[in-house]
Amino acid sequence: MKRAAPESAGEPALAIICGAGGLPFAVADAAIRRGRRVVLFALIGFADPKQVAAYPHTWGRMGQANWFIRHATREGCRDMLFIGSVRRPSLWQLRPDLRGLWLLPRILRLYWGGDDRMLTGAAAMLEEYGFRLVGLQEVAPELLMPEGPLGAFAPAEPDCADIERGLALLRANSPFDIGQAVVVANNQVLAVEGPEGTDAMLARVGELRRTGRIRTPAERGVLVKAAKVGQNLRLDLPTIGPQTVEGASAARLAGIAVMAGTTIAAEAANIAAAADRAKLFVVGIRPDEAMR
Amino acid sequence: MKRAAPESAGEPALAIICGAGGLPFAVADAAIRRGRRVVLFALIGFADPKQVAAYPHTWGRMGQANWFIRHATREGCRDMLFIGSVRRPSLWQLRPDLRGLWLLPRILRLYWGGDDRMLTGAAAMLEEYGFRLVGLQEVAPELLMPEGPLGAFAPAEPDCADIERGLALLRANSPFDIGQAVVVANNQVLAVEGPEGTDAMLARVGELRRTGRIRTPAERGVLVKAAKVGQNLRLDLPTIGPQTVEGASAARLAGIAVMAGTTIAAEAANIAAAADRAKLFVVGIRPDEAMR
Repeated sequence: MKRAAPESAGEPALAIICGAGGLPFAVADAAIRRGRRVVLFALIGFADPKQVAAYPHTWGRMGQANWFIRHATREGCRDMLFIGSVRRPSLWQLRPDLRGLWLLPRILRLYWGGDDRMLTGAAAMLEEYGFRLVGLQEVAPELLMPEGPLGAFAPAEPDCADIERGLALLRANSPFDIGQAVVVANNQVLAVEGPEGTDAMLARVGELRRTGRIRTPAERGVLVKAAKVGQNLRLDLPTIGPQTVEGASAARLAGIAVMAGTTIAAEAANIAAAADRAKLFVVGIRPDEAMR
Repeated sequence: MKRAAPESAGEPALAIICGAGGLPFAVADAAIRRGRRVVLFALIGFADPKQVAAYPHTWGRMGQANWFIRHATREGCRDMLFIGSVRRPSLWQLRPDLRGLWLLPRILRLYWGGDDRMLTGAAAMLEEYGFRLVGLQEVAPELLMPEGPLGAFAPAEPDCADIERGLALLRANSPFDIGQAVVVANNQVLAVEGPEGTDAMLARVGELRRTGRIRTPAERGVLVKAAKVGQNLRLDLPTIGPQTVEGASAARLAGIAVMAGTTIAAEAANIAAAADRAKLFVVGIRPDEAMR
């Protein structure tokens, strides 16, 4: 436990359960800027040890319910936030502790569900112990995608049709707990994201274009990302970063459309710069526009 | 125009519009066995010239409506059948003839739709000229998937749950004219087919397994294929062959489930042999079972 954050007026400390990537630290910094104390619950094998070391923290694994409950209670954390990417653990990686063993039947049932059910269930279990799940909206809204374009470019008329079709497809796929992204070009669906993730899906679209399997003209097509309908918006929001813009550019798309307010865009300035360099649009859609 | 097929009692000749692969010739042989005369309308760049040469045939391109109409009329063809894989042509590949030019606005409108709309529209245009679209069901039902397992293996209880989920997802995706196949393992959707096709999708699942991105145990998971809801079943049926079994085996799936009667399984004996070698099930689902 290194750097002590300034004590806040009375808000209890925030438990940040950290997966991989830089996002957990952006969230921690944002919470600290707002005067909140944070404790990082760093997941072994996912969270970056170098960055974790700069914050109050403890290391553990998914499935170790007792680890979380004991440390969070001791640190006076009541609110918890899950952030950063976490692959579905393999069963032997769960290594439950004693309380985890007791909860194992429930953990296993979640394990056979999709990613969404797994996270929701884990959060619900901990809520039974008195913890409160909070979302980025409450803790660091400045990390969420704003409405309208980031950068200089905006979608043209045919792009808007592709965006609408992409959003409709994501809505239809919502009950199946698949990926949160699709690529649509000239009304044709080029890809639906699975466990491979957005970057790999964009690489696939680029490859299909290079090999001539997709014949829609380059510089057409939109990456559309949105949270699932009915998804717990305090968990597992879709995310974009500068590398998403680079992937979309390599796939020769016209742009990226995401839902404003429910998509993480922690590096908005870098995203805008990358978009301008690549001559792509990156636009935040208002929820009421998406429902038309 | 080489080999003359035996004249049938009075049924008009069958126009077979041939894309790539061996399937057009299996269909031609089946029709000839039933005593029907066939004429192959071979699509340049798709149909295999060596195999085409063994049948009465003529060469042309998509978009050349006049080519089809003139030759089909001269040969006394009234029924037409589209078979074999055809990639979406690029616009310059259409090379419309005069009648095609006249129809170009309609062709272009189809072009911006999905594959399904394109085929349906092309068939509808030719139907206005008095031709009748026929399906494999009428001409060569023996090439369609039967009910129940091909080969020695059958799905177990958890496989049936994966099959149901896969069919439900394909139904939900039907309005979007995407691929006709998905992979589901332990209730988790591993892949949705896009323009890359089934073989490439299976290769992706295998890769995700090898790199640990998918953690469901090997030998679990089902490739589920089905025609879209409301799809014209005389056009573009889903297809499996021995290479589909090999792809599923390389992706370490438990088996393959397709709709009986609306899936092409032209090489049933080879599929069964490949399935037994790989210890996979390949099962034809009854439509009423799928609707539960």
